[in-house]
Amino acid sequence: MRIVAISGSLRAQSSNAAILRAARRAPVAGLEWTLYEAVGRLPHFNPDLDVEGATPPREVAELRAQLAAADAVLLCSPEYAHGVPGSLKNALDWLVSVGELVGKPIAVITASPTGGEHAQMQLVHTLQTMSWRVVDEACLQLSLGRAQLDARGEVADAAVIRSLHDAVAALATRAARDATPRNR
Amino acid sequence: MRIVAISGSLRAQSSNAAILRAARRAPVAGLEWTLYEAVGRLPHFNPDLDVEGATPPREVAELRAQLAAADAVLLCSPEYAHGVPGSLKNALDWLVSVGELVGKPIAVITASPTGGEHAQMQLVHTLQTMSWRVVDEACLQLSLGRAQLDARGEVADAAVIRSLHDAVAALATRAARDATPRNR
Repeated sequence: MRIVAISGSLRAQSSNAAILRAARRAPVAGLEWTLYEAVGRLPHFNPDLDVEGATPPREVAELRAQLAAADAVLLCSPEYAHGVPGSLKNALDWLVSVGELVGKPIAVITASPTGGEHAQMQLVHTLQTMSWRVVDEACLQLSLGRAQLDARGEVADAAVIRSLHDAVAALATRAARDATPRNR
Repeated sequence: MRIVAISGSLRAQSSNAAILRAARRAPVAGLEWTLYEAVGRLPHFNPDLDVEGATPPREVAELRAQLAAADAVLLCSPEYAHGVPGSLKNALDWLVSVGELVGKPIAVITASPTGGEHAQMQLVHTLQTMSWRVVDEACLQLSLGRAQLDARGEVADAAVIRSLHDAVAALATRAARDATPRNR
């Protein structure tokens, strides 16, 4: 099962990236992880470039192809001014028109010293509007910033690590279930 | 009184830009308008580049200077997937740390075929979190897309134009009042 992990922060030493690394160590068999790291290289979304039949910018085509090949997506985002980071929402804006991604299972994790409830709510709402399948039981709000990382920049809190591993297991379970046609 | 107008759409023939042109024709004396058109040229926000004492990217410095010199700001945004366009939120992300902009009077207009209530709510919430002064009586949700523009790509509906002119008058009144120290 292929999982694409996306961080919503462009910081070099980001707590969001550390969270995704911790998630990746979940003891769930058969997962193949890809970290999508080009959110900051996407062009600004322009509807003029997103019309039927148009050739999308190269970086956009790559993002769409990676996600289309994924069985599930794990998103981890900070919160900026009680909202979604603009660069992350820009990535989503490029995906609205992609019918192939409808129903894609996704878990939304927000991480900020205050938990990131506003960014979480907005991301879930936008993804549901895009008809992706937000897996509720795999979504987390983590009260965690860079101050809570250890000296190596990794997540150290055992309870946080456990909740991340549970989230990955829940996402994988849901994606596997949805991938199996029920009415054969 | 200097007003900076910002469109949240990068479309060449955008209804948001048309709305700002209509607003600009408001019969309010003494307004000097600047249209900020570089939202799509800003780099992606990265907190690593926004630390105390750092030299901001040139486009960011220009945006901050234009807004610092403004007496009021008029924002007009579409709504994408029940959210704020990522590129517009990215511009705001670069402004969070700018103390000089605290208290800046701003009117938020959203325009979409459905009115854009989600983008409106999120923009107002984020701007209030940034301690800007959102002028409620100058905010509008317009049920308007490109289909409602005339053949020249301009806003034609008399009621919409009237509401835009009222919004500009309200914004200017509020900005003028706030600019006058009350306890001399």
